[in-house]
Amino acid sequence: MKNIAIIGLGLIGGSIGLKLKGLGTGDRVLGIPRREETLKKALEMGAIDEGSLDISRVAEADIVFLCTPINLIIPRLKELAPHLKKGAVVSDVGSTKTEIVSQAEKLMPKGTYFVGGHPMAGKEQTGIEVAEADFFKDKVWILTETSRTRQKALEEVEEVVRLLGPKVVRMDPKTHDLVVAGISHVPLAVAAMLVNLVADSEQKEQMSQCASSGFRDTTRVASGDPVLGRDMFVTNRVAVLKTLKNFRAKLLELEKLIKAGDAAAIEKELKSAKEFRDKLFG
Amino acid sequence: MKNIAIIGLGLIGGSIGLKLKGLGTGDRVLGIPRREETLKKALEMGAIDEGSLDISRVAEADIVFLCTPINLIIPRLKELAPHLKKGAVVSDVGSTKTEIVSQAEKLMPKGTYFVGGHPMAGKEQTGIEVAEADFFKDKVWILTETSRTRQKALEEVEEVVRLLGPKVVRMDPKTHDLVVAGISHVPLAVAAMLVNLVADSEQKEQMSQCASSGFRDTTRVASGDPVLGRDMFVTNRVAVLKTLKNFRAKLLELEKLIKAGDAAAIEKELKSAKEFRDKLFG
Repeated sequence: MKNIAIIGLGLIGGSIGLKLKGLGTGDRVLGIPRREETLKKALEMGAIDEGSLDISRVAEADIVFLCTPINLIIPRLKELAPHLKKGAVVSDVGSTKTEIVSQAEKLMPKGTYFVGGHPMAGKEQTGIEVAEADFFKDKVWILTETSRTRQKALEEVEEVVRLLGPKVVRMDPKTHDLVVAGISHVPLAVAAMLVNLVADSEQKEQMSQCASSGFRDTTRVASGDPVLGRDMFVTNRVAVLKTLKNFRAKLLELEKLIKAGDAAAIEKELKSAKEFRDKLFG
Repeated sequence: MKNIAIIGLGLIGGSIGLKLKGLGTGDRVLGIPRREETLKKALEMGAIDEGSLDISRVAEADIVFLCTPINLIIPRLKELAPHLKKGAVVSDVGSTKTEIVSQAEKLMPKGTYFVGGHPMAGKEQTGIEVAEADFFKDKVWILTETSRTRQKALEEVEEVVRLLGPKVVRMDPKTHDLVVAGISHVPLAVAAMLVNLVADSEQKEQMSQCASSGFRDTTRVASGDPVLGRDMFVTNRVAVLKTLKNFRAKLLELEKLIKAGDAAAIEKELKSAKEFRDKLFG
């Protein structure tokens, strides 16, 4: 039997708890949210065995999942680190990794270990109310590996994460950040700016009347939590800026082909995109 | 009873035929595709009452829907125009309008009328095999109005189009082209370039492993027909270039905020986008 603590019981923390409890592995799930109300809700939903607002209770845990908003991961880690028992492993679910992992590794007391994590799963709504036991099924959960990573700690976290149903992929934090910039953060930037382009257009009314499924899907991620988006851009600044710059260059290439009326080259670009995407999701 | 001719029996032409026939209005639907095989298929599916490969048969029609690929609309109109009977009205379904409507209005013989049209509905697959009677239900169908538009002709086309189930919106061709640039063509450009950015990235393998529903939806339209996309960009060149330029400027604004680490301003941009989009599709 393992003691698993979940710090922060929102969509992610709540879904982890629901799944672990539902599996009936005999592990004990301790929830530590910030608000009494969330604690009550988590107990009602059966997402935790026991809960507390007292961070020092992490002393009981073998494995700790830090599931707070991204800007609170390091502050909460600082609070809880002194209470960890020897051999405890802490993982997080923040959507950027270079900065968090580098800071976290330095904060860990001797004999305790940090393994960065990022479940690639999201919803437009937030909060434990929308948590689901199968939220991670068939999703990807990235775990980071650095020169300081303890293999045994990584394996322990991976073992628990696998129980939640995702495909686990290991990579170093810098690669992680470029990867999420490319497939998540820059797509969000682009989706949000497509919406704002319409909102600021002279043809705003007619565009609103006519926007259909294509525009709806292309911009879906722009309906996500603005605070989460903001934190992605701020904490993943370097990778996002590099990727945005590359994206603008790509777009400018296409613009030049359109300006030149080079139908064959335009078709080639679109065909490459279609083929790559069809392979990815087909 | 009206005689309705459909030139081109692909996804759009086939769906028009299926719906009109299904309604049992007593109108006669004549299909004129380019290939014998399509004719056979259309008859089998019950998308037309009668078919022919002979374009001169439009002589029988009160209303003609030109449903060919966009680059064939004007060539086919040139072929069929001499055969039209007095009072006949021709409409098209091309996804750009300024150029087509301006050329088409000049090509119409005296006593016949052109009304530009654009059903805002698409699929990744093409061909009559994927046609559906309810394909236009709850979609938008734009009809264009210019100084040369005959009101009676516009009303006649609108009456038939309404039977197909969409919301009909009228606008001038130039506004139409800016509208579709904003909500369809530039989103396609952006989606395709997001895919190519990943395909050309050093982290291509890891990105492919991790891409999930967010990337899938943001780039969905990039899996559409590359030839259709090419033709959108080529025929709607002016509006697309103008809109792409505005989009790049918007993206650059966001980039500057990220570079400056201006969290409050980033959040404001994302919040505006979320609010506008939620209102649009909520």
